Amino acid sequence: MAKNGIRAGIVGGTGYTGVELLRLLAQHPQCELAAITSRKEAGMGVAELFPNLRGRVGLKFSDPAKAELAACDLVFFATPNGVAMEQARALVDAGVRVIDIAADFRIRDVALWEQWYGVKHACPELVAEAVYGLPEVNRERIREARIVANPGCYPTAVQLGFLPLIESGMADLDHLIADAKSGVSGAGRKAEVHTLLAEASDNFKAYGVPGHRHHPEIAQGLERAAGRTVNLVFVPHLVPMIRGIHATLYARLTAGPDLQALYEKRYAGEAFVDVMPAGSHPDTRSVRGANVCRIAVHQPRGGDIAVILSVIDNLVKGASGQAVQNMNIMFGLPETTGLGQLALLP
Amino acid sequence: MAKNGIRAGIVGGTGYTGVELLRLLAQHPQCELAAITSRKEAGMGVAELFPNLRGRVGLKFSDPAKAELAACDLVFFATPNGVAMEQARALVDAGVRVIDIAADFRIRDVALWEQWYGVKHACPELVAEAVYGLPEVNRERIREARIVANPGCYPTAVQLGFLPLIESGMADLDHLIADAKSGVSGAGRKAEVHTLLAEASDNFKAYGVPGHRHHPEIAQGLERAAGRTVNLVFVPHLVPMIRGIHATLYARLTAGPDLQALYEKRYAGEAFVDVMPAGSHPDTRSVRGANVCRIAVHQPRGGDIAVILSVIDNLVKGASGQAVQNMNIMFGLPETTGLGQLALLP
Amino acid sequence: MAKNGIRAGIVGGTGYTGVELLRLLAQHPQCELAAITSRKEAGMGVAELFPNLRGRVGLKFSDPAKAELAACDLVFFATPNGVAMEQARALVDAGVRVIDIAADFRIRDVALWEQWYGVKHACPELVAEAVYGLPEVNRERIREARIVANPGCYPTAVQLGFLPLIESGMADLDHLIADAKSGVSGAGRKAEVHTLLAEASDNFKAYGVPGHRHHPEIAQGLERAAGRTVNLVFVPHLVPMIRGIHATLYARLTAGPDLQALYEKRYAGEAFVDVMPAGSHPDTRSVRGANVCRIAVHQPRGGDIAVILSVIDNLVKGASGQAVQNMNIMFGLPETTGLGQLALLP
Amino acid sequence: MAKNGIRAGIVGGTGYTGVELLRLLAQHPQCELAAITSRKEAGMGVAELFPNLRGRVGLKFSDPAKAELAACDLVFFATPNGVAMEQARALVDAGVRVIDIAADFRIRDVALWEQWYGVKHACPELVAEAVYGLPEVNRERIREARIVANPGCYPTAVQLGFLPLIESGMADLDHLIADAKSGVSGAGRKAEVHTLLAEASDNFKAYGVPGHRHHPEIAQGLERAAGRTVNLVFVPHLVPMIRGIHATLYARLTAGPDLQALYEKRYAGEAFVDVMPAGSHPDTRSVRGANVCRIAVHQPRGGDIAVILSVIDNLVKGASGQAVQNMNIMFGLPETTGLGQLALLP
Repeated sequence: MAKNGIRAGIVGGTGYTGVELLRLLAQHPQCELAAITSRKEAGMGVAELFPNLRGRVGLKFSDPAKAELAACDLVFFATPNGVAMEQARALVDAGVRVIDIAADFRIRDVALWEQWYGVKHACPELVAEAVYGLPEVNRERIREARIVANPGCYPTAVQLGFLPLIESGMADLDHLIADAKSGVSGAGRKAEVHTLLAEASDNFKAYGVPGHRHHPEIAQGLERAAGRTVNLVFVPHLVPMIRGIHATLYARLTAGPDLQALYEKRYAGEAFVDVMPAGSHPDTRSVRGANVCRIAVHQPRGGDIAVILSVIDNLVKGASGQAVQNMNIMFGLPETTGLGQLALLP
Repeated sequence: MAKNGIRAGIVGGTGYTGVELLRLLAQHPQCELAAITSRKEAGMGVAELFPNLRGRVGLKFSDPAKAELAACDLVFFATPNGVAMEQARALVDAGVRVIDIAADFRIRDVALWEQWYGVKHACPELVAEAVYGLPEVNRERIREARIVANPGCYPTAVQLGFLPLIESGMADLDHLIADAKSGVSGAGRKAEVHTLLAEASDNFKAYGVPGHRHHPEIAQGLERAAGRTVNLVFVPHLVPMIRGIHATLYARLTAGPDLQALYEKRYAGEAFVDVMPAGSHPDTRSVRGANVCRIAVHQPRGGDIAVILSVIDNLVKGASGQAVQNMNIMFGLPETTGLGQLALLP
Repeated sequence: MAKNGIRAGIVGGTGYTGVELLRLLAQHPQCELAAITSRKEAGMGVAELFPNLRGRVGLKFSDPAKAELAACDLVFFATPNGVAMEQARALVDAGVRVIDIAADFRIRDVALWEQWYGVKHACPELVAEAVYGLPEVNRERIREARIVANPGCYPTAVQLGFLPLIESGMADLDHLIADAKSGVSGAGRKAEVHTLLAEASDNFKAYGVPGHRHHPEIAQGLERAAGRTVNLVFVPHLVPMIRGIHATLYARLTAGPDLQALYEKRYAGEAFVDVMPAGSHPDTRSVRGANVCRIAVHQPRGGDIAVILSVIDNLVKGASGQAVQNMNIMFGLPETTGLGQLALLP
Repeated sequence: MAKNGIRAGIVGGTGYTGVELLRLLAQHPQCELAAITSRKEAGMGVAELFPNLRGRVGLKFSDPAKAELAACDLVFFATPNGVAMEQARALVDAGVRVIDIAADFRIRDVALWEQWYGVKHACPELVAEAVYGLPEVNRERIREARIVANPGCYPTAVQLGFLPLIESGMADLDHLIADAKSGVSGAGRKAEVHTLLAEASDNFKAYGVPGHRHHPEIAQGLERAAGRTVNLVFVPHLVPMIRGIHATLYARLTAGPDLQALYEKRYAGEAFVDVMPAGSHPDTRSVRGANVCRIAVHQPRGGDIAVILSVIDNLVKGASGQAVQNMNIMFGLPETTGLGQLALLP
């Protein structure tokens, strides 16, 4: 780590995880942004594309072929899926540590990954080495990792919501239900008809009920915690809002725990997981722009079904904020460094 | 029924179910709107309050004390809960038929109703007589009813979604889950902080997880169909949109039905229930302004959990449109009369 | 006109003006929809693309090469700009009347049109013949027209708002200002980044201040009314809503008319222009889904600047509704036939 | 100023300017929040009302009668209009400096203020002393002020947009037009029907065209700059978004300045005014949550009408951020202290 702090590079950076990463790093006291690459926008000032950065980020997008990423301490991939797996090998070999905000290194079963992502994996041996970047589970391993697979947005909200229940062994693992809702920024900054304001506004729908790429990622995390296979139904929905994920989780209880105490204890030392008081209903705006997961636990009518409500900002704790949290851990900084932003409300 | 058609009166009518009822009745070919009452707005033109009606509805709000409702064939209550139970007795005795769009006559167990609505019921003997106005279940009894309890919005979407499964006896009745999402017009046209645009826009949250008034109404309907008690977890959420309910329903299957065929057969003759092709994801805007419930059925990964998606416009099939449908049945008109509006898309 | 009514065809129809035209024609009592073409979607049911039409529009998109449009009484072009000018000649020669909802025939000065639309006009001689389809100005000529150029959305709102003032000769024609705001459906059903919900929601901006294609169309209409050139500043803005245009118009008064009386008189016989009471502020939702322009006139603090507020639904009075109004006029039907839909509020 | 920084109190604080002030002060390195008062919420934790502050603001609302505001260095009034004028006298006499975010001290002409605000002013002598807190105009006087009248949101956007043009003497002062658009948080956190999501969403309208309280405030500022009376037409509109003001300003030019150079020079040293490159269209989201006014200047078609686009976040540069900026000036801190937040985009 240089005396000016971590020298960081970003590959990609014209999408939403990119601009959010830029916003966070521009306010990080111990990180120097060395380069950001974009084939398409090479030569354009970052702040021309994202005017919220005007006057604060002077960097220009540079040609990926010319960017000296190998001189960085750390490179973030804020790219579409399939890019990091092509470039990570060379960087790691050059001693650069890597955080992939996309999905290339999240699924340990390469065949399963290839089935869901529809391409052959370019770098399976790094999958085995990569550490899944959920600090609340893997903090120690992240510290030493050369390559971190930053979790997906839905997987972050769902795993943090289910983990205490599953780790405690008190849920029926054959009938887990995750009814999840996401703002449209989760679909990325891509020109598509179904996420136009005229299509997605004043509207609500489920999608991907037969299957969604985040299902195997979530299942993998829950199964690691359970030590066995789990049966999960995962139904994502599109909410007419920009940011935010709300996961409503249902599990049949096989024992009678004090849910509130269980969750409070599990997350007692965590800076970025907030177990709310009993009876709460967290709203997504309470984490808008902030690197926080807020959780509330319910047991309606005293029955045997637990209802867990878990909210994050998909671009922060669900992507770029968690990536900065991982960076802090990897470089020995206090985990909260540069992540003090409060949610914007209203 | 007069030769000009049904003479209808509306009590209340300054809220959202009121203006929606006015929109529908103004376009109904066999209904004459005779009076609309509002204590607060007496003397004001209806179209002054709701300018979408300018040039089409000349009626003024009249003082409830002076309105000659007893001369009507039918009176709709588009009032807050607790009004219809005070006035229905006199109207029924005068030979006027009544449709209560509010909740006063929906729950047959008066003690249970009083527990949830927090007041003593003024007219319990009419509760026993009232017919629950879900035409897809009670069409024949609605035909002769003197008083119809128009169903709630969540209960309409959830019951229509669950009924084929429950009537067929193939669901685990002890673990039914209804994860429901509603636009904010469901909260009515009341000045409240939590439904301000600055609070509810760009936000998503659950509410009422410990308990909600629509729970006993839904349970009553499902139990009638099942012939036994059911255990239902019902979690409502607030969506940043104006109209629409999306119910995502989960049931453990105890047998292996062809879900698609089951639903298509159950609703084959129904004009206002649309079972979509296998694999569909109905969006709420596909019913915006229309008296339709669209349903899609899924069985993710071939597992034992059925996922039913059911959407309505809470103000139409979930309130005033269903009320007009009930009116048509009560007065022997074709059920679709005046209900041909297509949903507004985009 | 056939005994079943007008046989109508639609070229294009996969965009927003297309689906809106389908919604209106499906409810029109004297129009039979004979064909709708789309190269890209040929063979697909219209209701598969637009599920609001399920059960009501059985038509499939047909290959433009095979569609028998020449057998229609009338063909609507609901296409991108530049399509109608290629096909109108043959249809007109075959005795088919044409309404172009796009811009090909709106500007009488072909050179000016080519400058703004960036292509050579394929059919300039029909431009001379085409009638500009603003019924409140050209009703008599529309009646006999073989080809009608349906006005743009901004031009409809701005012209209807300015016309009484300009026709009366009381405005300073050198300093007209039209500050106009549009919902995003005005940009069409095209995949573009700047109209994604994540970009356009919770946001407001001007665009096209240096120049916009609707400027020459508006100027042409105002100059026709004035009988001389006018100087107009036109600033469009993008509103985070689906439908609606609000034009706020400013003109320096050169005489002291009774504005309210002037506007009421000008539009006294018009079914689709509603001059609201003095002091009103029309909201766009009061015309959502309805073929109406509502106008309010103000003279703040008694000064010499008139402020005219004019609202329409850009897809109805600003596009497909006005096209149906023109069709009614062309075929001798009452002008309001099939256009009785009330605005959806809320 | 204490060694821990400025001891600040807040009167009010349950509204949107209050929560925004809390968000900013919680991240300010040299301000200690000593007390926040609310009669209604006394005893409740601030973070219970505003969960975005959980874990970061431990303070509780205290009873105004008991709060020791006189021990503060500075008291902010984040109250409805009419509160500060009752309490400011005592505080100022006790040596406490005051920033009123409401309107009590903004208008120097007390009779005019009373006419617009409908009550008798309780403290006219402090009006004469109060400094209008627009730092880009009054920086030196703010430094020594005992009481600062923080500008309104519209007045900030409109004045910053018009000032260079007016100070340079090149605008026709008799025909200034400010067409302004605001998100609904500008209406405050009050339960009202017209700002419900179901009313204000998917809708756009003007309001207050005959007159608005911000008119005299804007006119006062422009007249101070002009040294004579001006004639301004001000038309505010309600935008279906939470935060943001977009002012579109029109002025007839009486000379031919290089507008771009004029604006760049005027604001060259200003940290919080960003003159964008020629041809720009600032969007409100580019300042969402940030204490910035972004301005673009246009002269459409080279004509004699200048079009100025000016955007702010109404709660930050239009209210609480500007209040913190004033605090920094008053206490000799660098003006940007604690105001480094970047706008949240998307």
